[in-house]
Amino acid sequence: MTTTCVFCDIIAKRTEGHIVFEDDRCIAILDIFPANPGHTLVMPKKHFSLLGEVPIEELTHAIQVVQRIGPAVQHAFNAQGYNVLANNGSAAGQLVPHVHFHLVPRTMNDGMKFEWPRNDASEGELVDSLVRIRKQLARN
Amino acid sequence: MTTTCVFCDIIAKRTEGHIVFEDDRCIAILDIFPANPGHTLVMPKKHFSLLGEVPIEELTHAIQVVQRIGPAVQHAFNAQGYNVLANNGSAAGQLVPHVHFHLVPRTMNDGMKFEWPRNDASEGELVDSLVRIRKQLARN
Repeated sequence: MTTTCVFCDIIAKRTEGHIVFEDDRCIAILDIFPANPGHTLVMPKKHFSLLGEVPIEELTHAIQVVQRIGPAVQHAFNAQGYNVLANNGSAAGQLVPHVHFHLVPRTMNDGMKFEWPRNDASEGELVDSLVRIRKQLARN
Repeated sequence: MTTTCVFCDIIAKRTEGHIVFEDDRCIAILDIFPANPGHTLVMPKKHFSLLGEVPIEELTHAIQVVQRIGPAVQHAFNAQGYNVLANNGSAAGQLVPHVHFHLVPRTMNDGMKFEWPRNDASEGELVDSLVRIRKQLARN
């Protein structure tokens, strides 16, 4: 629970995040540089750098949250699929050393091709995404 | 448990796979078109097309296997990290409709950049990968 972790800061409400879902152990927030609209990050609230360090209880809870959030993110954007991605280590593209699963809605021919664009979304676009996903979650 | 699923065929031993790990509920096999050497696929043995369909018990077991295999795959190739990726739906790049997690070892400047190269590995290269990973797993 370091003070230099941007995700811990959001979890502790020291800085504002776009929180899609939250329970006692997990949080899901929007990626502010979305590969596609609705790009969401699911993570345990406790700070662990890498997947291998996460205790079983936290890990199995996190994957259940991923399983719940994934289809919601997909359907919220009328997408036909989604990617679940966890990067472990900076060599693997992990930018924030706090374990997280990316959930990226995908549509046919969206041109993403895993070049991982990092679009600088406006606050309005982010809020729109937040509303769509929360609405979708409320249906489940 | 369809006969038209290439992964079910491997699981049922109707066709040969490069099995990295196996228990009663899960199997880990090499991707025969590896993005990097050691590219491994972890999946539940039961046939489910999408992550959302996997029962909790199977899902939580699968993520624990991912957590075990990931670092093994990384260390087996002296890599500095690894990606965990599950593609859900063909729009998301899912080629085989049997839920699976890709585990791709990553080294700094390996040039992968998520263009997902699909290298046509030789049998010798595949067996070498298999031996390295099994050796690593035996240490844990």
